[in-house]
Amino acid sequence: MPEVSKRGVRMPESPIRKLGPYADAAKQKGIHVYHLNIGQPDLPTPRVAIEAIQRIDRKILEYSPSEGIRSYREKLAKYYHGYNIDVCADDIIITTGGSEAVTYAFLASLDPGDEIIVPEPSYANYTAFAIVAGAIVKTIPSKIEDGFALPPVEKFEALITPRTKGIMICNPNNPTGYLYTQSEMNAIRDLVKKYDLYLFSDEVYREFCYTGAPYISAFHLKGIEENVILIDSVSKRYSECGLRIGALITKNKAIHKSVMKFCQARLSPPLIGQIAAEASLDAPDDYMLGVYNEYLERRKFLIDGLNQIDGVYSPIPMGAFYTVASLPVDDSDKFCLWLLKDFQYGGATIMMAPASGFYTTPDLGKNEVRIAYVLNKKDLAASLKILEEALKMYPGRTINL
Amino acid sequence: MPEVSKRGVRMPESPIRKLGPYADAAKQKGIHVYHLNIGQPDLPTPRVAIEAIQRIDRKILEYSPSEGIRSYREKLAKYYHGYNIDVCADDIIITTGGSEAVTYAFLASLDPGDEIIVPEPSYANYTAFAIVAGAIVKTIPSKIEDGFALPPVEKFEALITPRTKGIMICNPNNPTGYLYTQSEMNAIRDLVKKYDLYLFSDEVYREFCYTGAPYISAFHLKGIEENVILIDSVSKRYSECGLRIGALITKNKAIHKSVMKFCQARLSPPLIGQIAAEASLDAPDDYMLGVYNEYLERRKFLIDGLNQIDGVYSPIPMGAFYTVASLPVDDSDKFCLWLLKDFQYGGATIMMAPASGFYTTPDLGKNEVRIAYVLNKKDLAASLKILEEALKMYPGRTINL
Repeated sequence: MPEVSKRGVRMPESPIRKLGPYADAAKQKGIHVYHLNIGQPDLPTPRVAIEAIQRIDRKILEYSPSEGIRSYREKLAKYYHGYNIDVCADDIIITTGGSEAVTYAFLASLDPGDEIIVPEPSYANYTAFAIVAGAIVKTIPSKIEDGFALPPVEKFEALITPRTKGIMICNPNNPTGYLYTQSEMNAIRDLVKKYDLYLFSDEVYREFCYTGAPYISAFHLKGIEENVILIDSVSKRYSECGLRIGALITKNKAIHKSVMKFCQARLSPPLIGQIAAEASLDAPDDYMLGVYNEYLERRKFLIDGLNQIDGVYSPIPMGAFYTVASLPVDDSDKFCLWLLKDFQYGGATIMMAPASGFYTTPDLGKNEVRIAYVLNKKDLAASLKILEEALKMYPGRTINL
Repeated sequence: MPEVSKRGVRMPESPIRKLGPYADAAKQKGIHVYHLNIGQPDLPTPRVAIEAIQRIDRKILEYSPSEGIRSYREKLAKYYHGYNIDVCADDIIITTGGSEAVTYAFLASLDPGDEIIVPEPSYANYTAFAIVAGAIVKTIPSKIEDGFALPPVEKFEALITPRTKGIMICNPNNPTGYLYTQSEMNAIRDLVKKYDLYLFSDEVYREFCYTGAPYISAFHLKGIEENVILIDSVSKRYSECGLRIGALITKNKAIHKSVMKFCQARLSPPLIGQIAAEASLDAPDDYMLGVYNEYLERRKFLIDGLNQIDGVYSPIPMGAFYTVASLPVDDSDKFCLWLLKDFQYGGATIMMAPASGFYTTPDLGKNEVRIAYVLNKKDLAASLKILEEALKMYPGRTINL
């Protein structure tokens, strides 16, 4: 038998999905599983999007342009203007989810052996997409005791080599919920300028900033406009994960041209998804406000609840709909597995994402989990109760009752 | 400014799409452009698919499983049984178009520097996807005077090195319309077995075989079941290019596991596309028969018409909906560009794909073009007339009138 590629062996399993078979097995035993593991919002997709899909009455479902439908890109440019992001339709390339945007950003700008620096914990699939490009991810730990603030600039500078080509951030952050401050963003800007790096900025959670602190886009930073590659997606803001519609936005003509070659090779992004995404831009203000308020309430409810459990600590996330919490356990990989395989409380259990998968430095995040607040408060209450009871029972518990 | 990756520079421009801006410019001058360049069928998508989309009434458009929706994969397995392809739902991974299937097949099985052998002319984007994987495509020319039959086995063996990992075929073939015979497929099987290679087999045109000769799937070949990675797509058989739904099918558990890691990283294939593709499997028999008969007639009409033009030659394609024809021109890249920039006949012109983009051997295909018969007979007749008149006028014509 010919061998699987080394790359295929090295690819990490998704920390969000790898316990899936155990969740399925639990469900088959009749146990209800509360999914706190995945960023799949439970809030409704805008009605205007569903209706746009229902109204589709074309004879042929044909390829769209490789860069995406023009009318959608024009409307999207206006949406960005609402966030003071000064881009036009020609700066925007529609991609198959944010995933493809990150992949093509890396493929167009990084060669095998090139390095990017990412504060960790970070979205696990950045590493996967870097492996596709043959690039090396170097991480700098941010710490739960600092609320996952940006590590000091010196830590970045210490990692910079002649092969360093970029910095990747996610803001507001998945998995931590951290929102970078103006002075942190300025520090990133200065680094990018000093070393002439790409700044890959994943900003798919911009709608979800809860503290009144401003959302600062990479495109708000002056003097590095051509270094920025912005990653976006409709998945989270409109509960449209299934559409697979994202965007890559750049003012750098050379990168734009290069990305377009990858886009032409895959022909086009999904047609129906673009039609629905375009319609979503007309979602009424009270749709976004309702979603925002719901996450705001859940965030308070979840974080308060977590911090009331013995030995559990969560910083207060400023954005997105995740938190990384520390638990009084020996190994959160084992604990999350145990919850699905060996535990239930009142016929139910919880699935969380072990944080180890969001770190590349070995042993970091060993007692941390990522929790997504994509369940309603009743389910969050039930999940918190299950977590509390599980921690009383778990053999690997590290504090005494 | 940081540099674009070398890979990004090396990526070829799509031979199918690169003249697009010139076609747009022609249209802006009021010239009608007949598109013979792209495999975008003009025949209708099955009504059942459109209706399935119109019936979607979900609250949330959520992620589907990374491997695709189970009910669709089960139904798809039955469809393959109809072609004596013995696969089950667990062998099938739903991908974002055939493009993603080829990309993940290469990423999971090929490391940088690994080689695959492809008969040329071949689908241009295989090279693009190989570049993504860092793999090297070695090509063996098939010849128009042989009707693009499989080159002799010795030519393959001469290219095999310790880095050779696979053979890629497209059957029925894009761009040539060739359909491999049983003895050709047996020769490929023996090579695959002898050198323990992967056989990447793109069979998206299986519905379109016109000569009564049998369609032989890679999965019909005995003894290499675990070497085969089959690529499929609903784009062509149901005129559903815009859905972006394909499949990767393998009985090789190690490859399956590896491909799934890439699939998990990109989370899921498009949800709506899967719903429509699943519904399409219920398209009535007369839908497929109508499509088949239409292509059958157009094929005869186009090939007869081409061969009646002075200096033009097209073999008779046995399948798919393309032909590669030779023209009495110095350089088909120049000719195709000239058609869009400098020619019109009765207010119209034609766009074809220069065949140079389907060859990697320099100078091959210089006087060949790929023509897709995705226009109705009236438009094909107009296109043939334009071609005939253009060849009378083209300064780089190589035969005397």
